[in-house]
Amino acid sequence: MAAPVKVYGPPLSTAVSRVLACLLEKDVEFQLVPVNMAKGEHKKPDYLKIQPFGQVPAFQDESITIFESRAICRYICEKHADKGNKSLYSTNPLVKASIEQWLEAEGQSYNPPSSTLVFQLAFAPRVNIKQDEAQIKLNDQKLSKVLDIYDQRLESSRFLAGDEFTLADLSHLPNTHYLVTVGNRGEAFSSRKNVDRWWNEISSRDSWKKVVEMQKSK
Amino acid sequence: MAAPVKVYGPPLSTAVSRVLACLLEKDVEFQLVPVNMAKGEHKKPDYLKIQPFGQVPAFQDESITIFESRAICRYICEKHADKGNKSLYSTNPLVKASIEQWLEAEGQSYNPPSSTLVFQLAFAPRVNIKQDEAQIKLNDQKLSKVLDIYDQRLESSRFLAGDEFTLADLSHLPNTHYLVTVGNRGEAFSSRKNVDRWWNEISSRDSWKKVVEMQKSK
Repeated sequence: MAAPVKVYGPPLSTAVSRVLACLLEKDVEFQLVPVNMAKGEHKKPDYLKIQPFGQVPAFQDESITIFESRAICRYICEKHADKGNKSLYSTNPLVKASIEQWLEAEGQSYNPPSSTLVFQLAFAPRVNIKQDEAQIKLNDQKLSKVLDIYDQRLESSRFLAGDEFTLADLSHLPNTHYLVTVGNRGEAFSSRKNVDRWWNEISSRDSWKKVVEMQKSK
Repeated sequence: MAAPVKVYGPPLSTAVSRVLACLLEKDVEFQLVPVNMAKGEHKKPDYLKIQPFGQVPAFQDESITIFESRAICRYICEKHADKGNKSLYSTNPLVKASIEQWLEAEGQSYNPPSSTLVFQLAFAPRVNIKQDEAQIKLNDQKLSKVLDIYDQRLESSRFLAGDEFTLADLSHLPNTHYLVTVGNRGEAFSSRKNVDRWWNEISSRDSWKKVVEMQKSK
């Protein structure tokens, strides 16, 4: 029997929790390897060998190591195509193209403003960094425009890529969770009818609820 | 015989030229559909139906439309796996994981500073927008850190993902071309031995030289 895959980094990290949600959806056994970022372990030479940018997560499966959360998720889904949630990343080229376009929309359009807001609203206060009000205002506006587009898309589609919950939806969970809980940005989601329905549905999945539990216990 | 695929948008756009380079590498016939951005055609209802964010490119292949340049490239490579450059996007899961991790590194770490610099150095002066010196300084620093990591990677590897030119390298061509030519940032690349070798090699490919010609003729 294969050894569990290893995920390096704390579940509180948005990028780590993206990978954990994917592993839980795909029912793949994993082991969390702590990386003490307060002690700078993510900048030490041994860690940089597997994650040259000094970020979390890093991922190991037997002899292969991978970084970048969305690349790790794609690898997990392709390797375990027949395990767990089979719709997460389709093998049908047309369905896959739709998943990829919304996964890239997350990475290129949703993530930049939402990750800046998560940092400013959720992490900066914890580490006594002064919040940048201009950055917050600018990125609230950018996020708002993206959510308007999502609301329109989700009027005619249950999930972003189509009728099924996929990696494209999953990839939005980590940042949105912080925005809605710690960031006090719930209204940006609840005030848009279709985004509200979508967010309630995807954030209620067992996989994501387990990740949130893991975040609490750390 | 299938109709040529359609690419909407001007070759001068970095994201459009990423898709064009991919089509040329894969030897896939295409038709360019002009989108007059100066006249706001990318914000008109008909265009927003295929690209809801109002950006270029959009892509059409028979009945399917796709947006997001990196998603379009993946689709082209998977549909035409046996055509043109077969190494561009491997079907071997381990090779593919390496391509994906460096393609995501481009999207998440290289693109943010380099696209900001391309805008500030190449596009802002053309449309009489005042350059933001603080943004330029900050993003020069960010780019420099990324290039240090690339230089280390390229010391032991001919290309980013391994021994072959792949989508991960290709995806760097559009922004880097503007940085080196119009942006006067050639030294950031030529001063790093391995990055210099890599850039000279990937920017000399016939596919990319054709894209540059298409940019000049527009």
